[in-house]
Amino acid sequence: MISPIPRIAALPAITPFVGPEALARQNGVLESDVLRLGANESTFGASPQVASAIAAELPRISFYADPDVWLLRQALAAHCGCTMEQIVVGSGIDDLLGLFLRAYVGEGGLALATTGTYPTFFYQAEGYGARVETVAYAVTRPNLAALSELAQKRQPALVYLANPDNPGGGFHGRAALAEFIAALPATTVLLLDEAYAEFAPAPERLPFLPSPQVIHLRTFSKAYGLAGLRIGYAVADARVIADVEKIRQHFGVGRLPIVAALAALRDQEFVEGVLLEVARGRNKYAQIASEVGLRSHPSSTNFVLFDCGSVERAVALVPALFKLGIFIRKPMVAELAHCVRISVGTAMERQRLRELLPQALAACPPLNHAV
Amino acid sequence: MISPIPRIAALPAITPFVGPEALARQNGVLESDVLRLGANESTFGASPQVASAIAAELPRISFYADPDVWLLRQALAAHCGCTMEQIVVGSGIDDLLGLFLRAYVGEGGLALATTGTYPTFFYQAEGYGARVETVAYAVTRPNLAALSELAQKRQPALVYLANPDNPGGGFHGRAALAEFIAALPATTVLLLDEAYAEFAPAPERLPFLPSPQVIHLRTFSKAYGLAGLRIGYAVADARVIADVEKIRQHFGVGRLPIVAALAALRDQEFVEGVLLEVARGRNKYAQIASEVGLRSHPSSTNFVLFDCGSVERAVALVPALFKLGIFIRKPMVAELAHCVRISVGTAMERQRLRELLPQALAACPPLNHAV
Repeated sequence: MISPIPRIAALPAITPFVGPEALARQNGVLESDVLRLGANESTFGASPQVASAIAAELPRISFYADPDVWLLRQALAAHCGCTMEQIVVGSGIDDLLGLFLRAYVGEGGLALATTGTYPTFFYQAEGYGARVETVAYAVTRPNLAALSELAQKRQPALVYLANPDNPGGGFHGRAALAEFIAALPATTVLLLDEAYAEFAPAPERLPFLPSPQVIHLRTFSKAYGLAGLRIGYAVADARVIADVEKIRQHFGVGRLPIVAALAALRDQEFVEGVLLEVARGRNKYAQIASEVGLRSHPSSTNFVLFDCGSVERAVALVPALFKLGIFIRKPMVAELAHCVRISVGTAMERQRLRELLPQALAACPPLNHAV
Repeated sequence: MISPIPRIAALPAITPFVGPEALARQNGVLESDVLRLGANESTFGASPQVASAIAAELPRISFYADPDVWLLRQALAAHCGCTMEQIVVGSGIDDLLGLFLRAYVGEGGLALATTGTYPTFFYQAEGYGARVETVAYAVTRPNLAALSELAQKRQPALVYLANPDNPGGGFHGRAALAEFIAALPATTVLLLDEAYAEFAPAPERLPFLPSPQVIHLRTFSKAYGLAGLRIGYAVADARVIADVEKIRQHFGVGRLPIVAALAALRDQEFVEGVLLEVARGRNKYAQIASEVGLRSHPSSTNFVLFDCGSVERAVALVPALFKLGIFIRKPMVAELAHCVRISVGTAMERQRLRELLPQALAACPPLNHAV
């Protein structure tokens, strides 16, 4: 009888996220009929340039992509104001999380994170045998002071920080981060997950922090609308990139994601339009929440936390909305467990949410106290 | 100063394959002008159904793909005569090699392989800290008797076997494999890389070996012509698949590879046409080789080894052909180092090779003895 290594055999059979496709199958509905507001995908789609770029590349899909991802790294370097040698491209941030955990933490190594932040970080850490210690949220964002204190005490190999945070939605500005980095132990890596960076307040957006300890993770899955293509990148010190070059999967990113990302990057006007519409949508969500007597949390991302007043009610709202054709998710962590997380949709989709939310809430347990 | 874990820091900065794009940049030529016969890609392209499937999916590229890859796993189960629970989809065989090495070998674990076989296996094994012991080729295919003997002696966690082999091109039939498996230690996994299985002799093609110790790896990159999309799968015992489910990257495969693979799988007529043409091309390559006084090796794949008579000549032929616009590669291992490996192209591409090969050989050191 064969069996995996003991560490893997002992892992629980969990997946970080159940897809809406699985929910649709379980509920006997067509996934294509479901309004997807649960995975922070962009329902605004991608730049029209992307479709043209993909069509133009189709005659070459039988050829492997350039393992150096040269053209895209060149374009990203110009976009980020760094050199190509500071960039590695992966099949999404999930892939890059694994890569940097392998390189900088490894089996038995220690990482710090925020309890309840992006679940795939914990999934990858567990999969690679890293130990993770956590500190609690400060409302909807990581508690930098607590993380800093623990980092000084525990001298971890790595600190994971999602900024803006998911699922919290909160954000730390450049000054607070610079202070946090300055106080990190000299041998600690800061893995800065900036999946939602484009949605942050404009003056603070995408701050590149000139520290050789920081690894910035970026994605085309959110603001650029390419979640279905799986492409993201890391910006870091050239020595850091050279180290992960030794272990990354060189042919792991396909041709179509690469040309799509190039086209998407060139069309910044489209992205600006998405950001504007997402900001408008967040305001609308705050209004929709208040209309049904719910509080909502300010967000620097493309989703909003609706505070349902009780865990029981939040737990019930997710399937209640799904029954009405709207897929949302909810944070599991205690501090946010009374909230549901709803991705910002188009104006029409927001209207649909507005119409169906009262009906869904009516199917949920009532609150015993005022929200 | 941050640094990776010692094991990663100690790894050499190598990449398993330099892409033709890098060679084109180094030589100051356009990669699109290069005839790619070096990476065993299919220059016959993909089924026309693939382009339609991709076009139809474009409106949904902002949504993550189904993490369960349900529809494709369903189709693959029907294709392979197994259940969905026996299939895991990954971003190519390279990805799956890493996944099974993580799960079944791990850091410090032992794997056996053939010296000089598919380099990415060794790259992934080294990246995951596995130890690899090897046995020499038996001409152009793995030496099953030697592997079997070493397996019994060393009781490895895993044996890697590419069948048909790359870069050797040789093949072991069902009976020999069944005997090999029967003699494996009960706790040893056989990781059977079948990237080229479709090109093997028809009666022996794609034999599923009913052993819970065997993991079959398959790809859409070769016969199906989807190398640029990065999609492959493993077929194994459902318990094996359940184990790697615990650590695989659930959103690692994009929407377009999935719909493309589904479309490609449906169009078996197209694949049969490719196989026929590849078989014809292999015969033509044997003729081209003999016209220029070279021997060639029989192949059960989509490439042919041309024996240049000396290592020096083989080493020189690769850049000589590149200068004339043809990208090929050569095996590094001693037993095959006097050969170059040329992927089977279309009739027109074969003709171009036939025309340019004498000129390229004339630029190489002459042989001191008859081939």
